[in-house]
Amino acid sequence: MAFNAAEKTAMGQALELARRGVRGANPLVGAVILNNDGAVLATGWHRGAGTAHAEADALATAAAAGIDVRGTTMVVTLEPCSHTGRTGPCSQAIIGSGIGRVVYAAADTTSDAAGGAAALAAAGVETEGGLMAGESRELNHRWSAAVRENRPFVTVKTAQSLDGHTAAADGTSQWITSPEAREDAQELRARCDAIVAGTGTVQADNPRLTVRGRPGAEDAAEPLSQPLRVVMGTTEVPASAAVRGTDGRFLQIHTHDPAVVLSGLHARGVRHVLVEGGATVASAFLRAGLADELVVYTAPKLLGAGTPSFFGLGVSTLTEAQAWRFDAAGGAFRLTGPDLRLQLEPTPENNEPTIGH
Amino acid sequence: MAFNAAEKTAMGQALELARRGVRGANPLVGAVILNNDGAVLATGWHRGAGTAHAEADALATAAAAGIDVRGTTMVVTLEPCSHTGRTGPCSQAIIGSGIGRVVYAAADTTSDAAGGAAALAAAGVETEGGLMAGESRELNHRWSAAVRENRPFVTVKTAQSLDGHTAAADGTSQWITSPEAREDAQELRARCDAIVAGTGTVQADNPRLTVRGRPGAEDAAEPLSQPLRVVMGTTEVPASAAVRGTDGRFLQIHTHDPAVVLSGLHARGVRHVLVEGGATVASAFLRAGLADELVVYTAPKLLGAGTPSFFGLGVSTLTEAQAWRFDAAGGAFRLTGPDLRLQLEPTPENNEPTIGH
Repeated sequence: MAFNAAEKTAMGQALELARRGVRGANPLVGAVILNNDGAVLATGWHRGAGTAHAEADALATAAAAGIDVRGTTMVVTLEPCSHTGRTGPCSQAIIGSGIGRVVYAAADTTSDAAGGAAALAAAGVETEGGLMAGESRELNHRWSAAVRENRPFVTVKTAQSLDGHTAAADGTSQWITSPEAREDAQELRARCDAIVAGTGTVQADNPRLTVRGRPGAEDAAEPLSQPLRVVMGTTEVPASAAVRGTDGRFLQIHTHDPAVVLSGLHARGVRHVLVEGGATVASAFLRAGLADELVVYTAPKLLGAGTPSFFGLGVSTLTEAQAWRFDAAGGAFRLTGPDLRLQLEPTPENNEPTIGH
Repeated sequence: MAFNAAEKTAMGQALELARRGVRGANPLVGAVILNNDGAVLATGWHRGAGTAHAEADALATAAAAGIDVRGTTMVVTLEPCSHTGRTGPCSQAIIGSGIGRVVYAAADTTSDAAGGAAALAAAGVETEGGLMAGESRELNHRWSAAVRENRPFVTVKTAQSLDGHTAAADGTSQWITSPEAREDAQELRARCDAIVAGTGTVQADNPRLTVRGRPGAEDAAEPLSQPLRVVMGTTEVPASAAVRGTDGRFLQIHTHDPAVVLSGLHARGVRHVLVEGGATVASAFLRAGLADELVVYTAPKLLGAGTPSFFGLGVSTLTEAQAWRFDAAGGAFRLTGPDLRLQLEPTPENNEPTIGH
């Protein structure tokens, strides 16, 4: 059978809901539950790794409101998963709820989560995919690329002046951005599995690269450990460096190649990396097309000289510029104190995973 | 007598209304008309040079709604003017309206417009100034500086990549920003009396520097002439250059000194200058502390190399950075197509008219 008008409308709404989430180890997913008249009974979306999947979120919302979902339709932007990760498999939750029909957009092609549609169908749930699949795939095109390439999703963060410098001519960089912006950046750290900096940054700033305060930690079922602190580069990190810490969550990878870093981290189970600390390291990831998300804190300051935020991207003429777009899924832009926080993602080009070259 | 609570609340509202206007030849001003119970009868604000002053706007709104303003109170963020510019003197309009009391924030200290309060008082209108005067002065601190220095108000516009380049390594710059951003910039041109570019930009891009379409021209009482097209620099502009045009609105000023340019333009009656076309010229105005407003169109592109948007600002260490702030009066930031339009003003520092040095 085909999709009815209410299901099409609901899928558009589900895609909007999906954009409320944060990018990272998991894809952005939204879900809407419709009754048989096509009215919306409940909605849900995935807020990020470690939280409920969109389907479970919508079911929980319905349950909390005392809504009977038996025989209703769930419209969801990604094929419900069949694996047990940090949360149970959505296909089982849907079967258990008595939902009669599932309409999804894109198929889940990840090896460990695919098969949800088949499981639903086997359990007698009417299941149909492909509604607005292109929009769903585009929404998660970089997450898909990361999965396909067996590497973590990569967020690159930088803090710069309005004219694109991360430090003044004499090298001073503390602090280009405000306390509010630096506090905001802590939340970025908190949602990653690993934080990567270069040996130059470790030498210059001696950062700890820890999550202070760990926002939300007290709500988690288990105490959250710190993200892995990773320094890339061949210069040995001094024994006294703050980044080493005492919790065993430190790792140096002796390479200048971002792909080697990502491969090593993926093997250790890291699924979301935050690259911060050093224009050199940030530029290396961008040059390699290995940046899936870019967060730029821009201070309303002008320096007119200093360290460029990015360099050596291999762009010699305007048409070769790396093409990004302000990312509605991340809020695109907002003030953090006096500074502007910009969030971008690479534009999809021919569905290729890499950009700029 | 003192100000009552309703007048204080209304002044805060008037300041917010003022911020809806655009900066330029005239100050930002807002006005609120209160009845004797302190209820708001009408509001108004100044939308920019050539349009009604805030007081006249509020009176017109009240008249259009059939509201009798006789004996009521007008709360306005700047002393009503007493001069006849492009619009009639507000003090006379207020006297004619029968308004009984005027509360204003800052005094008008310009030589040709001051004296409004005295005129009101002489006509029997109860007039009291100084309520939230500091806020009003801060709102227009750069406009006041321009008036004090007998120079035009200066808006500097640039179009750059996310990492602060106006051109790629090979010099290509057309177009860094989108058609939408370039169309938006036309509105900036339309509200200025003169547009300034450098000889280098004229040579490289051969721009016309005209207002295409002139948004709003059909609504004006008289056909609007083009802004004066000004090229600064010592290299003679070629006879074939597009910027010369045929309407006599072209002028070359043979200097590299922004102060000389502004002085010459002020003597010709220019009250609002748009500086565009050339990182060299833009940087010269910024270095001299002669930029009152900054509009930056930021494309979501990364170049990693190329012409810096600003250079030679005399900043060697971070604490010397030119301090600006995102300007709520200008909308601060919004998308123009895929690009971000940022609007900033210098932070007030000790009420000094210049910044950064």
